Parts: sequence; structure tokens; C-alpha cells
Amino acid sequence: MPRESSAEERMTAVAQAHTAFRQLRTSTSDERRRWLVGIAEAVEEHRSALVAVADDETTLGAGRLNGELDRTIYQLHHFGDAIAQEKHRRAIDQPGDPDASPQPRPSLKQMRVPLGPVAVWGASNFPFAFGVLGGDTASALAAGCPVITVEHPGHPRTSELLAEIAQDALAKGDAPRGTFALLAGRATGASLIADAQVKAGAFTGSYAGGRALFDIASSRPDPIPFFAEMGSVNPVFITRQAVRQRGGEIAQGLVESATLGVGQFCTKPGLVFVADGVEFVTMVEDRVANVAPAPMLTEAIAAGYRQRRSEMIDNSTSRATFANASSTDESDGSAAVLVVDHEELKESWSVLSDECFGPLIVIVTCDSDSDLVDWAQQTPGSLTATIHASEDDARDRVVVKRLVDELQDSAGRIIFNGWPTGVAVSEAMHHGGPHPATMNPIFTSVGAQAIDRFLKPVTMQGFPDELVPPWLRGGTTPV
Amino acid sequence: MPRESSAEERMTAVAQAHTAFRQLRTSTSDERRRWLVGIAEAVEEHRSALVAVADDETTLGAGRLNGELDRTIYQLHHFGDAIAQEKHRRAIDQPGDPDASPQPRPSLKQMRVPLGPVAVWGASNFPFAFGVLGGDTASALAAGCPVITVEHPGHPRTSELLAEIAQDALAKGDAPRGTFALLAGRATGASLIADAQVKAGAFTGSYAGGRALFDIASSRPDPIPFFAEMGSVNPVFITRQAVRQRGGEIAQGLVESATLGVGQFCTKPGLVFVADGVEFVTMVEDRVANVAPAPMLTEAIAAGYRQRRSEMIDNSTSRATFANASSTDESDGSAAVLVVDHEELKESWSVLSDECFGPLIVIVTCDSDSDLVDWAQQTPGSLTATIHASEDDARDRVVVKRLVDELQDSAGRIIFNGWPTGVAVSEAMHHGGPHPATMNPIFTSVGAQAIDRFLKPVTMQGFPDELVPPWLRGGTTPV
Repeated sequence: MPRESSAEERMTAVAQAHTAFRQLRTSTSDERRRWLVGIAEAVEEHRSALVAVADDETTLGAGRLNGELDRTIYQLHHFGDAIAQEKHRRAIDQPGDPDASPQPRPSLKQMRVPLGPVAVWGASNFPFAFGVLGGDTASALAAGCPVITVEHPGHPRTSELLAEIAQDALAKGDAPRGTFALLAGRATGASLIADAQVKAGAFTGSYAGGRALFDIASSRPDPIPFFAEMGSVNPVFITRQAVRQRGGEIAQGLVESATLGVGQFCTKPGLVFVADGVEFVTMVEDRVANVAPAPMLTEAIAAGYRQRRSEMIDNSTSRATFANASSTDESDGSAAVLVVDHEELKESWSVLSDECFGPLIVIVTCDSDSDLVDWAQQTPGSLTATIHASEDDARDRVVVKRLVDELQDSAGRIIFNGWPTGVAVSEAMHHGGPHPATMNPIFTSVGAQAIDRFLKPVTMQGFPDELVPPWLRGGTTPV
Repeated sequence: MPRESSAEERMTAVAQAHTAFRQLRTSTSDERRRWLVGIAEAVEEHRSALVAVADDETTLGAGRLNGELDRTIYQLHHFGDAIAQEKHRRAIDQPGDPDASPQPRPSLKQMRVPLGPVAVWGASNFPFAFGVLGGDTASALAAGCPVITVEHPGHPRTSELLAEIAQDALAKGDAPRGTFALLAGRATGASLIADAQVKAGAFTGSYAGGRALFDIASSRPDPIPFFAEMGSVNPVFITRQAVRQRGGEIAQGLVESATLGVGQFCTKPGLVFVADGVEFVTMVEDRVANVAPAPMLTEAIAAGYRQRRSEMIDNSTSRATFANASSTDESDGSAAVLVVDHEELKESWSVLSDECFGPLIVIVTCDSDSDLVDWAQQTPGSLTATIHASEDDARDRVVVKRLVDELQDSAGRIIFNGWPTGVAVSEAMHHGGPHPATMNPIFTSVGAQAIDRFLKPVTMQGFPDELVPPWLRGGTTPV
């Protein structure tokens, strides 16, 4: 039975966050940066304990967990850097203009301020980087928002250790009590996002979970922003010319990307459209046959994968190839590839176009590059879309342009001649996309701009310089 | 009976917008700027006809309507300027870094792209500036989104003439058919915001109207962003020292701002907290007594105002003073001021803290400046909050700082020693605020940043320069 916080624990966490916010909203970015760096250093200090407990609670293994911890530490620094010199405030200082048209304009100084306490749900598949001390928490703290986290039931002890480390580091840095809290349980989460003192929510996980919380957030008497990142089908488009030039290499890259982490990444390339790809399909099938089964996050997830895979096979005309090696371990997921002709896909679209969480690839064989463009118009909202084409072929360049025109409607990130797994934490990253990949296509959950989710603009009209913060005096003046 | 579009008209408008978007999404900002300027020029050409029909349909009068038309024309140019050189794209060009920590980083180029067809609802109180050709439409077109507008039943002929002018100007500028459409009716609007091809909505009007549409947008199978600007109570805080130094001037300014446009502005200062204000109250009462009754937008709005005013008087311990001159015209609204002691306000908070649409001022007499700060903590989400204080008094400066700390949580714009009515169209303006002023505190409906509501980021990973638009090559590189 997963842990469930008591109503009292929840109300205490919210009340303390509310009080903490009254201090946090006037904290400087230097202070918050120090807190983030302090947490990062404390996480590093407790690395071996953290990896040990997470290794015990999950199937991810010490290698992957150490790498994920690197990313988590990097993120904390990244968001600290992103607020240096209050640059996240996006200060604009526009002097008054008595001669402005159509009417005189008063002096206007715009800044961004934190929204208030934020509720954050940790993901199952990344206990560190997208967990209770992951990117959502780091970006909300950077913005100046207290964070009330809800642990994923898949790794409660990891979450508790992370929370202890964070609270201890924050206390040492003199952050207000209530800046970070940890809660647990589904009912607790539902009450939390409905609480009047909570001003925004951020979630990484399944569509069902994200949607349920979004619905509560949106139907409150006072709706609040709710950001959910929920994974997607991540289509891939491979031109005829790309197959000719690099078929084997692309097949290899595809199988590696789709089976990385036993296919449990939200950016797993799940639906592949290939032009003139008979040979290519064989190459993928051969490689999938050789992928060794590996444990998925939990037995339930592995069972869910097998069930979803059967559903896809039973309800389509696809041809299935499975990994050769079989496993009797109930928690293992084995790779598979389904192949379907694009004309037949039309009938099985509803079953094949939805995400399958696990190491499954659906390959759709198309007759021509122009079929690729047609299908690009119809793919559902995704975090990513990938194009493989020849860089030096003039006709392929036209196909790429047409694919980009279509895919910018449905994908948050478009990858050229690469693979979508591995999401760089950087200023220019966008980890988002149209529904059902997220609940709001305008925001990212990875990279410096993730902070914008937890800030709102305030314009100060007619204020003399002495009455505004120093960083709002003589800020960027628009032309 | 208000006009209601047929289902066929609605579906045609949506289908044409969907088709138009396929061209608009690759249009250049120069093209769209020309369309906006073309519309602005056409509006100027038809000025006399537009003012005549709006004067006939509303009570606003030719003077005000001409001024509002100036603003509308200015807005079209403003949003055209805001996209010059594609600057709304916020291009970021971050080269790859094979030595990046914690892992190598591919090249990432980020841009903003339009969301798709947008539904826009015109407001009753501004047939031009916030009407079907107002700021929401101009900013959506600037972003590259086709717009399907829904007219306000208060001025259908004005809306139809505006639509004709816009469609004609767009056709002359070779914009795709379907870039702008006009529909009418409440049921039509509800179906429109539920349509799968509509990707965002923007609304200016009553809370009930905005909330109903937000609820539909949020409960779609694929929820979409819905931006509603719904007016607010716009609190004012006047320190003891300000009353001493400029009591008469402040009283005069307050009454002028609150009765401007017969109190029918969403930024009307409706709830005034004054420290040590016995004399100040008398000055306001004297001035309110001399305000002449004037016609409100419609008879229904005037009746609603009187009813809401009675409700506020009957359910509170406030003392009411009315304008001396009486009117027998059912569409007239006469000014009034309600005065209540801050200790008594606690009991009548729920009835007095809600917006009253019309020329009514509620004055709350406080004992001290510190009471002002206490009340600033409790005021509901508002588009604006106003502070009147002494600029040269050290103690007042502390009070102002404390007031700003509180009010930045609840107000989108904070005005110092001025008045909130008159919303400058400019880069640094924020016309937004927490619920119930809007349905999303992160966005503005006035000023260049209003365009951001209709754009989403897309990151291009690993693309060579030749395969991205020119403005995405060598864009801003973050440090």
C-alpha cells in the first residue's frame, strides 16, 4: 500500500509554504542561487547513499543512477545561473513620454515575480532528474516559489532521502522553513492541487495522472496554471535517400534510441515512417531480435507494456518481430518491432498512434517521400519529431522543409539526422509540445526557460527609481 | 433576439481558418505587418462610417468613439512593429558543444511558431479597441494565427462593418482567405471553442462569460490555452500623509477615474482604502454628489448596476451618498460612494469586495497606514492596484514598499500617485493579473507581449543553417 500523507501533514506543508513565500518573494536571486548550489553540493555529498537507496528501489542500476544524479546536480546549478543578476525578471524600464501617440504614456517598469507555492509531482522513470528534487523543483525554487512535492510511489525512500538532503541544505542556507516539503499519496495530491494557497502545479508522468490533476487545477473556483509533461509517440520520418545512404546506421541508431532505458523515456522514438524501406525494415528486425530483455521500472509497468503490445498486435494488421532471447522474469521487458504498410495504418491508426511505454517500435512503410509529408500532417502532439534525410540532396532538402512545416505544429523539438532521447539541459532546449504530450504547448519543463512557468509580470507605473528594486532601475528600454 | 450564426457558417469559418493557417504559418513578419497596416489604413478610411454606426448602436458618443478608433489603429501598427525582423520569434541559436557537461550538447536553434486558428470574443464596452478588430485579433494575426471572431450582441452592425473592412483589406494584401472571420451568438461561441481545429481563445468581458468559455476550453479532449480578461475591483491605498498633502487632488482624481466612461472600465478604481480619511471622505462625497448621470452601455447594464449597488448597500453597514441630479432615463447610471469603516468591512467583505460594473466607489476608512498593508494582503486578484503616498516622506516610503510586496501577489499593474484607467499600449504594459481578473496570470492582453499568448517554442536540433529560416541562423547565442 503506497504511503499517504495525513490531512494534517498536507495542511502544515501548505501553511508553511504560504508563510515561506512571504519571505521568498523578496529574496534576491543571489540568495536563491546559493540555496540551489547548496542543495547541489549536499546531493553530491550524499551520492553513494542516494544511488544505493535508488538502486534498491528501482531497476535502473548504479551506472544509470549516477549519470542521472550528475544531471540533477547540473540542473540545480543551471537554474541558479539562469537567475544570476535577476535576469529571469526580464526587467523593462520604459520612461514616460508626454508626447506619445495616441496619448501621453506614464513611466512603466515591468518585472516578473514568483506566482506563490508550487506543487510538484515526481516522475517514476527518473527518480533524480525528474523526481522531487528534479527540474520542476529547481526551476520553481529559482523563480522564488516554495515547493511542495509529491513523491512517486515507485521510490518513496529515495524521495524521502532527497527531501531530507534538500531541507537540511536549505536550513543551513537560512532559507525560510517551508521552502521545500515532501508529501505522498494520490488523495493527498488531489487535495493539494485544489488548495487555495497553491498557485501552480508541475507534473511529469502518465497522461491519466497528468490529466486528472489538470482537471482539478482547472475546475477550482480560482483555476491555476498546471504544467504536465506526459510523454508521446515521437514520430520519425526517414526519406528514401537517407535509407540508401545510411540505412544500416539509421536502423542501428533507431533500435538503440528506442530500447535505451528499456524504452521507458518520454522521448522514445515510437512511430517510424520510412519511404521505400523494405531493406531497412529487415535491418531493424534483425537488430531488435538481438536486444536482450531487461528489467522495466516495476513489474506492473512490464505487465502494462506486454498488454499494450498485445493490444497493438491483435488490433492491427501489423507484422511483429520479437527479441530472440526470452525471459521468465515478470519485470523484464523485451524489445519488439511491428511493421505495417501505410495504407493499412489508416485502419489501425487509433491503436497504433498512441504511445506504448516500453521498447516497442512501430514501423510504417511508405511508398514515397511525399507519403511521409502526408503522415507528418496527422501525427499527434509529441515532445519530439525526428527527420532522417540526405543533407546534400536538393530534393531531400525540399522534403525536409515540407516535413518541418508540418511537424512544427505537432512537435516541441525537431531533430535532424539524430535521435530524440537525451534532452540537453540548456537555454535553447524546448521539452514540451502540443497535447497529449503536455497540457500547455507554450512552456518547457527542461532548460532555463522552465522558470518562466512560475513567474508572472507586474508593471510598476509612475514609480520613481528609489521605490523599485535596483535591478528595475534603467533596465532594458525597448526601442 | 441576438444574431446566431448557423452551424454551417461556423464550420466554414473554422475550415477556412485551418486552411489559411497552412499558409500563415510560413508567412513572413513583413507580410503580416503589411496586412496589419493595410487593415489600420482601411479602418482610418472608413472612420466616419464606423463612428456613425457605433454611435448609433452604443451610448459612447462620437468623441469617445473617435478616440477609441485612434487607439485601435495604433494597436494594429504597434503589433506590426512588434514582429519586425521576426523579433517575436525570440530566436536562440546555440551551437553544439561536444565537451559540454554533464554530456555533449547537439546544436539547438529555438524559435516561436504560431499556435493555429484562434477564437476571439469582442467586448461590450470597447467596440473598437477590444472588439472584433481589437488587440486580441491584432496580436493573434501578428503571431501568424488566423482569427475567428465572435461579435458582442451590443453592437452587431459595428462588428460586421469592422469585419468587412478587415476582410477586404486582407484580400487586397493577398492574405489567405479564412485569415479573419466573424461569427455571432452564444451557442456558436461555445461550439467554436470546443472545435478541434481551434487552438486558443481570447476573451474580454464578464467573469461569467469568460469562465464559461474557459471551462469548455479546459475540458476538451485536448485542452487549449484560453485567455480571459474580465475586469476587477482595482483597489486603491491612500496613506495618511498623502491625504494631508494632496487630499483634495486625490479625491478629485479618484472621482474622475471611477466615473470615467460611467465607471464601465475594467480598470475602474472600485475599492479605496484610506488612512485617517474623515476629511477625504467628505471631499469625495461632495464631488460624487456633483457628477451628472450619464447613459450606460445598455439599459440592461444600467439596471444591473442599480441592482448590484442596492445589494451592496442593503447587505453592508456602509453609508451611501448619491449624485444629486436624478434621471428618469432607464439607461442612465448615476455615481455613488459607499463608506464603511475597515472594522465593519470584515462582515460585509463578500458583498463589497466584488466588482461593481458602474460609477460606484467603495471607501474603506482605516485607522492607520498599517491597516492599509493588512488589507493589501487580502484584496482579490486585480488588473491594477493604486498607491497614493508622499514621495518625500521616509515613513511613507516604507509603507509603499510594504504595500508593493503585498500587491505584487494580487495585481498585474501597480500605479504610484496616478490612476489605473487609461492602459498604455506599449512594450512594458501588463494588462493582466491573478484570478478573478483573468484566467491566467502569466499573460497580458495589452501591449506587444500579448503576441506571446499565440506562439509556442519549437527547438530545431542538429539542423544545418541551410535548412532553417534565415532569421534562425546565428540568432542570439546565450552566454
